[in-house]
Amino acid sequence: MIKARDIFTKFILKIFATLFAFCLIAFSASQVNAASADAELMSQAKTIFGPLPSSMPSDENPITPAKVKLGHTLFWEPRISSDGTVSCVKCHPMGLYAADGLRKALGNHCKENPRNSPCIFNAASEIATHWIGNRINVEDQAKQALIGPPAYGMPSYESVEKILKGIKGYVVLFQDAFPKEKDPVTADNFAKAVGAFERTLVTPAPFDDFMNGNSKALNEQQKRGLKTFIETACITCHQSPYLGGQLYQKFGVFQPYEKYTKSSQVDEGHAAVTKNPADKFFFKVPVLRNVAETPPYFHDGSVDKLEDAVVIMAKIQLAKDLTADQVADITAFLKSLTGRIPEMALTVPVLPSAE
Amino acid sequence: MIKARDIFTKFILKIFATLFAFCLIAFSASQVNAASADAELMSQAKTIFGPLPSSMPSDENPITPAKVKLGHTLFWEPRISSDGTVSCVKCHPMGLYAADGLRKALGNHCKENPRNSPCIFNAASEIATHWIGNRINVEDQAKQALIGPPAYGMPSYESVEKILKGIKGYVVLFQDAFPKEKDPVTADNFAKAVGAFERTLVTPAPFDDFMNGNSKALNEQQKRGLKTFIETACITCHQSPYLGGQLYQKFGVFQPYEKYTKSSQVDEGHAAVTKNPADKFFFKVPVLRNVAETPPYFHDGSVDKLEDAVVIMAKIQLAKDLTADQVADITAFLKSLTGRIPEMALTVPVLPSAE
Repeated sequence: MIKARDIFTKFILKIFATLFAFCLIAFSASQVNAASADAELMSQAKTIFGPLPSSMPSDENPITPAKVKLGHTLFWEPRISSDGTVSCVKCHPMGLYAADGLRKALGNHCKENPRNSPCIFNAASEIATHWIGNRINVEDQAKQALIGPPAYGMPSYESVEKILKGIKGYVVLFQDAFPKEKDPVTADNFAKAVGAFERTLVTPAPFDDFMNGNSKALNEQQKRGLKTFIETACITCHQSPYLGGQLYQKFGVFQPYEKYTKSSQVDEGHAAVTKNPADKFFFKVPVLRNVAETPPYFHDGSVDKLEDAVVIMAKIQLAKDLTADQVADITAFLKSLTGRIPEMALTVPVLPSAE
Repeated sequence: MIKARDIFTKFILKIFATLFAFCLIAFSASQVNAASADAELMSQAKTIFGPLPSSMPSDENPITPAKVKLGHTLFWEPRISSDGTVSCVKCHPMGLYAADGLRKALGNHCKENPRNSPCIFNAASEIATHWIGNRINVEDQAKQALIGPPAYGMPSYESVEKILKGIKGYVVLFQDAFPKEKDPVTADNFAKAVGAFERTLVTPAPFDDFMNGNSKALNEQQKRGLKTFIETACITCHQSPYLGGQLYQKFGVFQPYEKYTKSSQVDEGHAAVTKNPADKFFFKVPVLRNVAETPPYFHDGSVDKLEDAVVIMAKIQLAKDLTADQVADITAFLKSLTGRIPEMALTVPVLPSAE
């Protein structure tokens, strides 16, 4: 009896040991498979998007510490606006990832701007600025904002220069930033300084950590989302390390966008700049970095939820109906693009005295 | 001949040596006098104003790190305002010493507030808040601002609470700050958190360094200004380490204020709160810390220059015509009240995600 029990026990133990060994092998194999799948996805992502640079330099406006310091200060300066309330941070508050959370930006005297404020982080990488590309680059955007009727609303560049020249602290800062110039306090140099500051605002994110080899930087759902993002061809437009900003595309390739965004007005987009009917409804493809933190979405801020924006994009740009899981996965992936905000952007400059 | 020349040379040298000794004694005496005058002024200032505390505590709302952290975040939060643009920093931008530089503050939809935005630094030390004292303390001010028609303009406290409860990150921050409460996301706790943050915002200045024994912290003109400030009796109203905020006083004791400020409207001041005609034109005496950095001046922001404000104050409050030198000296002294802004006030909080 005892022997039989022993044999039975040994038999059971053997079975368990065999099963355990099998499990171990299967687990190891799946780990190896997962690791190799991760490595493949990493390498694929790296090839498609490329590594995120540490800044966004410009030959016309080299980044120097003195220019960045001045630009950082000017970014917060409201005394050069027609009602004394508009500075760059009005539409790009840093704590909200440099977007304002409104459907359309509100400038001096609460005038509504034609379109939604984009996140300013990584924006210097784009082919042009503003949704319709009516500004050449961040410097041009900064300069024209000064006299933009719904922006700073100043009557002229001279009127801005006069105010800045009246603030002694600024005269010193401009001299430091543009040491070779006799009369450095100009709207052009305002633009260069603000631009230089903006050219430093790159926001590395978990997605970059993943591309740089940390497979745990994305969770499984985010990895699935990244795969789907690639396979569904979102990458056709959302290119580069910034996932956007590199080309214009028609909003509503397969169907009119307003049908899905419920936009109250239809915007002709880039055609307003080029006067070419072929550019009707074309917009600059937005950078997707920090997209999860910068609702509402699209040029008119007509959509509140990121999931809804994902569904609409697939539907009207790619003629694809995503499954609920695919939407959730892509949304999870997009959250991995929420970056680390540079310390300087989160530091309020003490503005020079009025006198 | 040679001898005579030697004697003459020796004589001349003796005279020089004597003169030098005299000068040395006179100089040392003047130094001793200056040092003792400095010591006297220091001791006098210390007795009159008293040392600046490191924070402004409250028994009803003890300062805790978790409350301060939440309050710091909420201070920058615009999503709880009726147009999505108003947060505490709208009227109290930190880079402008927590005042907005406007004659009268602009709230939601650019609605004009009845009076000028005061500097929020050191404000928790005051007997009440707002120029006319219609708010009990900083907590009361913060709470009522939420539903103030020209401030955040929200329809009710519940509508604010609903938005905050919809932002997961806030639920966690409120729980941390008020750990014993079942339902901590309330307008009252918003007020306590913002108040706790404000209670930390003390700004030590060169004037404090001087009172603490560093005689070089003020230059000679500033020392003369301090003496004049004391002797002209500015200290009758500008009391305490904050140089103000401790009592109400009639604006225009000797002459109607509007005669000098050129104010377009006359404000009844504290009488609007007490309904007592005796309080007509009474206002809370403003804290003078950081006054040089927070133009324009007075409850209606009617005066742009600090010098002009000094002249008017002496004229209509004390019936004194200051000399140009006295005005320059007092103004120089007031600049020594420009303080060091706490690091936290210059750090932008990253706001919790909308979802």
